[in-house]
Amino acid sequence: MASREQIGVVIVGCGTVGGAVAQILTQQADELTERVGVSMPLRAIVDVDFAHARELHLDENLFCTDLDAAITREDVQIIVELVGGTTIAKKIVAQAITAGKHVVTANKALLAHHGVELLSVARRRKTVIAFEASCAGAIPIISSLMGELACDRIDAMYGIVNGTCNYILTAMTEHDQTYADALSVAQAQGLAEADPTLDVTGVDSAHKLTIMADLAFRRRTRFEKIYVEGIDLLEARDINYGKELGYVVKLLAIARRQGDAISLRVHPAFISKRHPLAWVSGPFNAISVYGENSGHTMYYGRGAGDRPTAAAVIGDIASVAIGNTQRQFQTLNVWPDRHEDANQLDVSAVQCRYYLRLQAEEHPGVFAKIANVLADQDISISSILQHEPHTETDESVPMVITTYEAMESNVRTAVDEMNRLDVIKQPCICIRMVAEHPEQTGTRD
Amino acid sequence: MASREQIGVVIVGCGTVGGAVAQILTQQADELTERVGVSMPLRAIVDVDFAHARELHLDENLFCTDLDAAITREDVQIIVELVGGTTIAKKIVAQAITAGKHVVTANKALLAHHGVELLSVARRRKTVIAFEASCAGAIPIISSLMGELACDRIDAMYGIVNGTCNYILTAMTEHDQTYADALSVAQAQGLAEADPTLDVTGVDSAHKLTIMADLAFRRRTRFEKIYVEGIDLLEARDINYGKELGYVVKLLAIARRQGDAISLRVHPAFISKRHPLAWVSGPFNAISVYGENSGHTMYYGRGAGDRPTAAAVIGDIASVAIGNTQRQFQTLNVWPDRHEDANQLDVSAVQCRYYLRLQAEEHPGVFAKIANVLADQDISISSILQHEPHTETDESVPMVITTYEAMESNVRTAVDEMNRLDVIKQPCICIRMVAEHPEQTGTRD
Repeated sequence: MASREQIGVVIVGCGTVGGAVAQILTQQADELTERVGVSMPLRAIVDVDFAHARELHLDENLFCTDLDAAITREDVQIIVELVGGTTIAKKIVAQAITAGKHVVTANKALLAHHGVELLSVARRRKTVIAFEASCAGAIPIISSLMGELACDRIDAMYGIVNGTCNYILTAMTEHDQTYADALSVAQAQGLAEADPTLDVTGVDSAHKLTIMADLAFRRRTRFEKIYVEGIDLLEARDINYGKELGYVVKLLAIARRQGDAISLRVHPAFISKRHPLAWVSGPFNAISVYGENSGHTMYYGRGAGDRPTAAAVIGDIASVAIGNTQRQFQTLNVWPDRHEDANQLDVSAVQCRYYLRLQAEEHPGVFAKIANVLADQDISISSILQHEPHTETDESVPMVITTYEAMESNVRTAVDEMNRLDVIKQPCICIRMVAEHPEQTGTRD
Repeated sequence: MASREQIGVVIVGCGTVGGAVAQILTQQADELTERVGVSMPLRAIVDVDFAHARELHLDENLFCTDLDAAITREDVQIIVELVGGTTIAKKIVAQAITAGKHVVTANKALLAHHGVELLSVARRRKTVIAFEASCAGAIPIISSLMGELACDRIDAMYGIVNGTCNYILTAMTEHDQTYADALSVAQAQGLAEADPTLDVTGVDSAHKLTIMADLAFRRRTRFEKIYVEGIDLLEARDINYGKELGYVVKLLAIARRQGDAISLRVHPAFISKRHPLAWVSGPFNAISVYGENSGHTMYYGRGAGDRPTAAAVIGDIASVAIGNTQRQFQTLNVWPDRHEDANQLDVSAVQCRYYLRLQAEEHPGVFAKIANVLADQDISISSILQHEPHTETDESVPMVITTYEAMESNVRTAVDEMNRLDVIKQPCICIRMVAEHPEQTGTRD
């Protein structure tokens, strides 16, 4: 074929993902050009330290420490920001946009906190920010939300969007590991950071949730208003009681339309073994989307890792190179910079079923006291599980109660009251139980 | 906002899907325009009979029996072909393209048989054919293959792409129904056609497989060369023996790259209960894709039905309306009209595990004869299952053998030889066993 159009690329940040993107852009350049129909030459790799780049045997001629020079090159149209964090990364993205360059990023924290602002600037400068890799790695959830799903009314999304947490929960559930052991193994295998706080506390999932919810619901959601609870306080024995009852625990990122309002939350949840997300194990991610016309669709794949995340970055580079991201950004009305603030419901308005574990003294009348507290808060008991005590230990045996659907605010009041009962020896453990979302294909509100 | 661009639409064929598309385009017109940023007015519904259109209370002013007039309208840019079949539909699509219109179609048979020819004409006429709805209903598998996956080397696809078959197999497996009963229920629920031949014989799945494989492997695959075996001859007792061994049966559409060649086949397969496709039940579809960089991604949703299929059609209309399908068609090198014929491997070259059920006389030495036949063909036995005979019946008890991986041609020879043994009383039943595809993220051949 004739000489191809060239769209020059600069990568800023040559860590795990940046290194993989550089490898693919250079080592698979011919195949990529042949497939996409546009040449996307890598012009420079910007970083302060090239140790990892050298390990990967990347071309040293591409190494560059002068960010300004790389960004303003005339033969560069796309800046790939893979620095991470919200300070330097924000400056880099803003600088690239201001220089009239398109940006591709995997930075969920940046978008969750500053997405609207950066998208507004990009729109004014007639550039785009592409961010498929920011949510769930290789899973094309962002392009799906900008494709067929952008033509539908989305009612709910349920995601397992943090591979570290899902790996740890799978190890705890299937291999009876403790949280601490599972985390150590995950760290040893490169599936968890040395400081895993952002992952295990649910913050990373909430970053992704706000990005996806903005597009799905066409409103500006606020990360700060998302209810976030991590997996770091989960105990193995609750996972085991759940198993006994037919449930597995997952860290779910949930977004639901409720009338004109939106409920966003991240927390561990018991889901039935037959729930469509129950089989998603190890470091994999999956996102269930419920659309008015499309019904339930689900997207599954690797949510992290060098090559899978790089695949999403490369997909974005190609989509910008052929101009499709630009058209979507200019035409579709899914972008949060074009929309109003969402009416985000407080978690106290959530209705779901609850798993409660109580460590109570064994006296006559104990259960009556507990039952009265629940009844006073309009909470119906669905099941009770209490094993015979071990005779050889003195330990009191916990009582596990599952409820029918109840209001979160009522459950919180009940838990507070139960914790104040003199027969209750440890704070009550409370885990939400999430049912499969009803599919309402073909019905209108 | 200011007055919007208008992209006029004509629907040809107002059946189940056509009716739903017309409903969405008219009843949800304002929302759709607001979301997509382009107005997509429905200009006409072409059919010979408007009984269904009237049932749906569609605007009678849109009803039109003059196809030529509708296609050539100046205020129409997109013709939606939902007639089905390969004769009239082909004429309609060719006529629309020739008139310079873009085509959106859900017609897998048409594309499987005449896709290359029609795409070539469309390319010459500078129009496009969009066909998301042709494969797996609401699942955005075609856009995914044209998105991130188009930048990757795809090594394999495994799909459950026929909802009728999956519904029947789920009913047989989970509710112990016979094939005939499950089919009757499916027909009563509108999940199977009055004449279910195309579905249950696997032909429909093969249509979809050739369409997806063309894009994934960037080669022209031939429907006629696909090995196709349906579910219509499956017996409930094999499903039950499989269950006992830890397997469920699914009708799989499989496409694998093997060196420079491609293996395409549709057949019932036993997959482990832990296989990523094992949980896909009822009328749902799912497609697993294995990419070099992206790894294993999976796409799940409703493969049929009025609204889910209509959602895919609407997504295509919108993508054409904003111009993205045109760019993908012009730029990406995934289209079969641009590629060479695939080297399609014969099914005899397939290597997998096999389930064999033998009805043998109970004599000393019977098993030795069978074992010798298998050994002669280099087939190793993995497990043997034979229950004690029922004392109250005279019936001989079948022997179920599972093999290690073996060459299909060898297994066929072995089955022929076993069927000729005087101790074998009924033809041997042979069902392929498909393991989870290895994910080779980050490795190159």
